[in-house]
Amino acid sequence: MQINARLVRKENYEPKELNLHETLFHNANGYIGIRGTLEEGVPTDYPTMRGQYIAGAYEIIPMKQAESLCNLVEKKQTMINVCDTQTIRLSVNGEEFLPIKGGVSEANRILDMAEGYTERTTVWTSSSGRVIRVRIRRMAHFTVKELFTIEYEVEALNFNGEAVFDSSHVSEVANYSDPDDPRLADESPCYLKTVEQGFSESRSFSVAKTEKSGVCVAVATDHVVLSDSRSDSMIREEGTTLITRLRIPIKQNEKITLIKYAAFADSIRETDPKARVMQVLSDAMSRPLADLYGEQKNYLAQFLAHSCMQIEGDAELDDAVRFNMYQLLCAAPHDAHSGIAAKGLSGEGYEGHFFWDTEMYVVPFFILTDPSLARNILSFRYATLPAARENAALLGHKKGALYPWRTITGVECSGYFPSGSAAYHINGAIAYAVIQYYLSTDDTAFMTRMGLEILLETARLWMDTGVYDRQGRFCIQEVTGPDEYTCMVNNNYYTNASAAYNLRFASKLYERLKGDEAVKQLAAKLQITDKEIADMQKAADAMYLPYDEEYGINPQDDSFLEKPVWDLAATPKDDYPLLLHYHPLHLYRYQVCKQADTVLAHFLFPDLQSVQTMEKSFRYYEKITTHDSSLSTCVFSMTASMLGLKEEALAYFGDSAKLDLLNRHENTKDGVHTANMGGCYMAIVNGFAGLRVTEDGLSINPYVPEGLSRYSFPFAYRGRSLKLTVEQGRATLELISGEPLRFHFRDRKEELGKEEPWTQKL
Amino acid sequence: MQINARLVRKENYEPKELNLHETLFHNANGYIGIRGTLEEGVPTDYPTMRGQYIAGAYEIIPMKQAESLCNLVEKKQTMINVCDTQTIRLSVNGEEFLPIKGGVSEANRILDMAEGYTERTTVWTSSSGRVIRVRIRRMAHFTVKELFTIEYEVEALNFNGEAVFDSSHVSEVANYSDPDDPRLADESPCYLKTVEQGFSESRSFSVAKTEKSGVCVAVATDHVVLSDSRSDSMIREEGTTLITRLRIPIKQNEKITLIKYAAFADSIRETDPKARVMQVLSDAMSRPLADLYGEQKNYLAQFLAHSCMQIEGDAELDDAVRFNMYQLLCAAPHDAHSGIAAKGLSGEGYEGHFFWDTEMYVVPFFILTDPSLARNILSFRYATLPAARENAALLGHKKGALYPWRTITGVECSGYFPSGSAAYHINGAIAYAVIQYYLSTDDTAFMTRMGLEILLETARLWMDTGVYDRQGRFCIQEVTGPDEYTCMVNNNYYTNASAAYNLRFASKLYERLKGDEAVKQLAAKLQITDKEIADMQKAADAMYLPYDEEYGINPQDDSFLEKPVWDLAATPKDDYPLLLHYHPLHLYRYQVCKQADTVLAHFLFPDLQSVQTMEKSFRYYEKITTHDSSLSTCVFSMTASMLGLKEEALAYFGDSAKLDLLNRHENTKDGVHTANMGGCYMAIVNGFAGLRVTEDGLSINPYVPEGLSRYSFPFAYRGRSLKLTVEQGRATLELISGEPLRFHFRDRKEELGKEEPWTQKL
Repeated sequence: MQINARLVRKENYEPKELNLHETLFHNANGYIGIRGTLEEGVPTDYPTMRGQYIAGAYEIIPMKQAESLCNLVEKKQTMINVCDTQTIRLSVNGEEFLPIKGGVSEANRILDMAEGYTERTTVWTSSSGRVIRVRIRRMAHFTVKELFTIEYEVEALNFNGEAVFDSSHVSEVANYSDPDDPRLADESPCYLKTVEQGFSESRSFSVAKTEKSGVCVAVATDHVVLSDSRSDSMIREEGTTLITRLRIPIKQNEKITLIKYAAFADSIRETDPKARVMQVLSDAMSRPLADLYGEQKNYLAQFLAHSCMQIEGDAELDDAVRFNMYQLLCAAPHDAHSGIAAKGLSGEGYEGHFFWDTEMYVVPFFILTDPSLARNILSFRYATLPAARENAALLGHKKGALYPWRTITGVECSGYFPSGSAAYHINGAIAYAVIQYYLSTDDTAFMTRMGLEILLETARLWMDTGVYDRQGRFCIQEVTGPDEYTCMVNNNYYTNASAAYNLRFASKLYERLKGDEAVKQLAAKLQITDKEIADMQKAADAMYLPYDEEYGINPQDDSFLEKPVWDLAATPKDDYPLLLHYHPLHLYRYQVCKQADTVLAHFLFPDLQSVQTMEKSFRYYEKITTHDSSLSTCVFSMTASMLGLKEEALAYFGDSAKLDLLNRHENTKDGVHTANMGGCYMAIVNGFAGLRVTEDGLSINPYVPEGLSRYSFPFAYRGRSLKLTVEQGRATLELISGEPLRFHFRDRKEELGKEEPWTQKL
Repeated sequence: MQINARLVRKENYEPKELNLHETLFHNANGYIGIRGTLEEGVPTDYPTMRGQYIAGAYEIIPMKQAESLCNLVEKKQTMINVCDTQTIRLSVNGEEFLPIKGGVSEANRILDMAEGYTERTTVWTSSSGRVIRVRIRRMAHFTVKELFTIEYEVEALNFNGEAVFDSSHVSEVANYSDPDDPRLADESPCYLKTVEQGFSESRSFSVAKTEKSGVCVAVATDHVVLSDSRSDSMIREEGTTLITRLRIPIKQNEKITLIKYAAFADSIRETDPKARVMQVLSDAMSRPLADLYGEQKNYLAQFLAHSCMQIEGDAELDDAVRFNMYQLLCAAPHDAHSGIAAKGLSGEGYEGHFFWDTEMYVVPFFILTDPSLARNILSFRYATLPAARENAALLGHKKGALYPWRTITGVECSGYFPSGSAAYHINGAIAYAVIQYYLSTDDTAFMTRMGLEILLETARLWMDTGVYDRQGRFCIQEVTGPDEYTCMVNNNYYTNASAAYNLRFASKLYERLKGDEAVKQLAAKLQITDKEIADMQKAADAMYLPYDEEYGINPQDDSFLEKPVWDLAATPKDDYPLLLHYHPLHLYRYQVCKQADTVLAHFLFPDLQSVQTMEKSFRYYEKITTHDSSLSTCVFSMTASMLGLKEEALAYFGDSAKLDLLNRHENTKDGVHTANMGGCYMAIVNGFAGLRVTEDGLSINPYVPEGLSRYSFPFAYRGRSLKLTVEQGRATLELISGEPLRFHFRDRKEELGKEEPWTQKL
């Protein structure tokens, strides 16, 4: 497999690029995330988000409502910056290495996605003319998930002397804040307060705890010096900062290396986090670093074997997709204690909250590449079902569960309910993901133990929300669809369609599994009656899906098409994203979409409308969508593919694929757009390749967009490992492992055996 | 004129009654308001809102939004508690008069509405058996509006000794707060900081200033002792409290009296507030107190001559109406520097904000009783037109003015825009009041100088908000009508109807007055074109007024009737008002009304629908209205009258009339419900008497509800003074002064000359 798995960027030490690079070159492994900040620090007037995070570690902070209406959310959870173990200041012969202030002749950054590290190399000349080459390699380890390493190598190019490292472990750090951006926190105290800190021989350790959530975080660091000469070390404490000073003689053309190990553990997962970090450090330091690098590489080789997408004909797209898929892995939780945040573990945008993005955009990737990770994410939703029931009750529902719009532990953290809690479609997204997982894996055990309960409780919420109108149509009122530029509407097409799907599948699956002992117990626990199940089916059948005769399209909601169309052509470029420049009430009054809404419904539920209607809808919404949300272009791409609009599909795909690499929304500095990355994968797999999994099984309908010559990807399906290769004029499906397969190519039934690949002229 | 103008209540010194009495027995004159708190204070665990207010005196405080969406209001104005000049502690022979702790054999409170004072009388026995009678009379003077007096009389009933008064002037006081009630402030610092304080001979003075709004308040107090013996006085300062101690020998059966004068002035109205208060005190103290009482009485005699409503057949109702009308006078501003707050000057409920209540419910009373006070209120709206334009711009409008939902100076102070700024109907209410004022007074000068500009700018807002739908109907979307249990709806019937009225009258009046020089200047200033005026007329003609064929009623909005009907019968009594017990999103999803909405539209714009439709609407909405708002029952009463539903009209009227006197909403402690008081007046005048003023002139259609025998009221109409008396079977209209009058009795044209009253058998 010949792939380019490296992202290389010149490092100009420019303020504007630095925080972008912090995101692009962050290290994460689904448990810890470390922003790619400069070890040596930056001047105080430089923008930087110097953060290290643990998946699911949070504090509870007040979120006062301007008017305290009944049951509004008045506190929220926020992802905490847990520590700073990145800081390493270097001096050579008394001159401090501060490349940001000048003296750089050559510098770059690398993200190696096959080896699983980032690297910064800088050739730097001090004011007295001493030249050093510094190479810093960082790794968040995928198998030893508590471990973060920095391998700091210094080469003296034209002098002999001494290198001094001041390596810090700061146990109380503040979160980033920007009061001018509603997508970021606007206050930033230190959420963790140190409970215990100190040195145990050369090893620094700290235990810190949040005040409200009671989450405890333990961190330990230690160092190894690789040098021909003897080094000298000294430790000291300054407040909550633990500093290790290392003096190392250095000779011309000699390389000396400092390896800094940092381990992290939390009280959510560990009963004794401190003991755990000590153990992790001891284990890690008992092995050569090369061993850890090797294990990392093996892990990624496995990952690539199951997931590596290759695109030929456009190297930039190929790189972008690989980058995106790597980022998804970095964000994927290894247990059921967290979901996937909007920015993964790469930054503090949206305060580390999990949204519907996870299920709708990211879970599909894991279902097809590593179903066990998909199950982790869905298990997190199962674990938070009690909180979702409480949330539903707060909103006045007598039955059912409503998943929170944004959360860390399952408790609603949305401060503005019209575009928060009112987005009931998150229930639909979670149900859809559970169903997709089930259809793709046949994991009945998961369904009887967790999935069915999620489906039934979300279905109940629709039953408790909807109402039959005078024409006998089942209507859902006062909800917000995916497009947040219109809020609290009646009969949002997307919401109604996904509610119908949820209701229908919940009732069907219950009927199918109700003989199962676990399901009998579930039915007793939930007090499910046959009538309730029949009512769900009836509501699904009667679900109102608005259709406009005159335009021949599905209106986004009951009144959408009666509003004036926003004049996008006359809107100054600086006015985007509109949400930062227009009062929400103003936005609500126009036909203007932040993102795909009805268009996403068409993609997910194509059987509900004719192709003609969906194409008209696509064309209609395309003209009024700003794509101010990063969740939009990928959906437009996959729907375009479905409708045979190949040129549009490729263009939207490109927008989506390169969003972070090209910083297209100018906010990648706050973290990567995880959902879009998943959407980009879907645009190829579900879009170009037309891969779908339904109750009828697997079907494909592949094509290669003009401009690309070929793409291929492996995927998992019901215990099998498969690989689809699509070229101009030909598609090939290989069974790599598992049982022979019946599948659909377009409307045709096909079979794939173990002996030879299935091929098809296109 | 034989009327009962006294409200008398037993004073039990019960915690629960105390803050209710603070409201009922407050003193106000449209400029200052002083809660009827106990001079001697209450224990700290007693609920009390110890407040003194100046109309329009405010501070600006932060109002953080839970999510900072674009252009949301992030600070608000709040009415400030300006000072405490009420505190007078009394000891007799070293025993402190603290009736709240016991020893009371007899106590009552009086509000005398003909004399304009409140009085508290207490017969109290000290623990050593000394008995005193204390009579405290308080007055906020209607002509010397800066003046508040306390006449404190002590009679020793069974001993000789010494009375000691500690009379305080506290210049820094906190506002009341209740974090559990969204209708009250939830924080309460001292908003005024003392700039200057001290004594000038016996006179205490203070000047204090707010930090943000820069409002300066000056207060001065002084004392006069009436006693046969010589008294002894001593002054001292404790922090920002200025204390005057007066020792007065007292003999058995002798009455001694302390008169405390307090004067208030502010920097909104005065360039040198301190000089002003000193002057007011000097002037007031140069006259006998009896003189000031006399002037007060004369003022009220005038007021009663113009406004005194008399109801025979139900003394309780008669009392209630008189109380309500007196309270309206207490709230009425004497200049254009303030409006009328939801609670007048009687308490801190709704933080002293002015709402649409003023124009829709209170202005009608003043138009008919003292048009100059009505003009003051409308002039305040004219003065705040620039702020309303800015508010419209914040909400994305290119033209027009949107009055703030709640404000003190004209700046929007609503924290939750879906039931705040989105209530565009406030524009309709202000326009309606301007039109009513004009039609009732013929005050063309006001219209050319102020009124027309208000009408045009509010009309422009409708033009900028509304849009023609595909059927060519002019639609107004995403607004909130009077009923806040449904928010951000399309084509709220009430809003559309009042917008049409506003548009039609603005264009008509402009056409009528456009030859006037002032109007020409206005047209140039506003860049009004003939096309714009024609467009307004066209929009008014095309205004969409939803009508439901099946039910034969006007739906409250486009989707209202498709929602399920809230089961009021099954709602526990403790769950009212619903807004305190249900999440707003839950309320929005049901047919349930906080208050009259379409029913009010029917009353205001009866020509838009047939009587049958309006009656069906009335019956329909009656069943789903909780009257959780105090603005509701009065409207149901007047609409019932209009529809000939006499029994209902009387029942709703009774609910409305006694709301505060009987503390029916259990929140009169926070202040009186000013709008309801105006509505109660309207329920008689516009309801029972069917009095209306339209472009066709005055019309009446009176009846006497069963159970009442007679009612009469004077009123002003186009320079005339009239009096209508309605008995069972007969109506009489008298011309007290002014020119002969043509008017309508039902559909018949009638004439009223100077010589004899018009009478009519009913």
